[in-house]
Amino acid sequence: MEKKIDWSLYLCTDRELTGEKNFETCVEDAIKGGVTVVQLREKNLSGKKFFETALSLKKITGKYKIPLIINDRVDIAVAADADGVHVGQSDLPAKAARKIIGDEKILGVSASTLDEALKAESDGADYIGVGGIFFTATKPDAESVSPETLKKICESVKIPVVAIGGINSETLPRVKNTGIVGVAVVSAIVAAENPEDAAKNLLKIWRE
Amino acid sequence: MEKKIDWSLYLCTDRELTGEKNFETCVEDAIKGGVTVVQLREKNLSGKKFFETALSLKKITGKYKIPLIINDRVDIAVAADADGVHVGQSDLPAKAARKIIGDEKILGVSASTLDEALKAESDGADYIGVGGIFFTATKPDAESVSPETLKKICESVKIPVVAIGGINSETLPRVKNTGIVGVAVVSAIVAAENPEDAAKNLLKIWRE
Repeated sequence: MEKKIDWSLYLCTDRELTGEKNFETCVEDAIKGGVTVVQLREKNLSGKKFFETALSLKKITGKYKIPLIINDRVDIAVAADADGVHVGQSDLPAKAARKIIGDEKILGVSASTLDEALKAESDGADYIGVGGIFFTATKPDAESVSPETLKKICESVKIPVVAIGGINSETLPRVKNTGIVGVAVVSAIVAAENPEDAAKNLLKIWRE
Repeated sequence: MEKKIDWSLYLCTDRELTGEKNFETCVEDAIKGGVTVVQLREKNLSGKKFFETALSLKKITGKYKIPLIINDRVDIAVAADADGVHVGQSDLPAKAARKIIGDEKILGVSASTLDEALKAESDGADYIGVGGIFFTATKPDAESVSPETLKKICESVKIPVVAIGGINSETLPRVKNTGIVGVAVVSAIVAAENPEDAAKNLLKIWRE
């Protein structure tokens, strides 16, 4: 089942990079600037706090009618009634995640090779996050995916592909003509002094 | 709904304390020694490895027909079709966990006060793990619960209570007449040179 979602500018949160800014305000400002999807990614929070943050972000994304996707924790996605969940290659397998969330909710899977992408598609992913495209401080050990691989993946799967990893206003143009439906960004928005302006600028570059 | 389970000797795993021993063998040996319930507790594994470990332990517990309970990760409990899940006070709230697992699976909740125990019961817990009873290296920051509080909790809730925290062959007799239905142990079994003998000895002390 295809879910109609505007993947153009996909924000992945990072509490540490958000710095002094209020976390929820930062996300809301980014949405005001044009972010079309939000993924809550929390690696160091307790389950309880992760769940509470998911509930509070859901109020924000609900207000702007954009999807909220939870990273890794399928149970928190279900408990918070988020719109979907995103799993990486070292998380609960996509097939198992799909079984828990059912068909209605969005399932995203990270892939860095064509094989992983094809497997994600056959395991029931609704979209694939391919990366890391450029070297990034957020995931220093992520292998970088060549523009050729990215293109090949886009040509080989039927589901939407977003690129992730080191995408900012300078690098964004280099992934535009690969067949992706949008770009996922972390630091280019959350670490920006003004997340709203940063999102606005990225969306403008994506669309122009 | 009451689930008929023998809570006498409840093993909580700890990969770090298991040391050089093979993890699965250690658990199987402990079951041979008399462990009646196993909880898989993994704090540092990826979701994928946690899930795979749950699947491999399920084969073992299934063979001996004893329940396997997953700590914290409700999604992994569901994906691995474990018998239940155990949540602490900083995990996904018990009510949310119950909603995900349904009525058939076992829900355990940690409590260290009467209020927490009563709330756990009203939130749908099938049993309560009360602790830490004695000071323990496994959870150095866990506050110790007095035998009076333990007794008070057992008198105040209708669901089974197991005591946890620093329970070994020396300390076990001190919690026997508090109303608990069993003892949960970590290091007294997994860190033992011979987990089977350690379990056998603890069960003997519990039953005598």
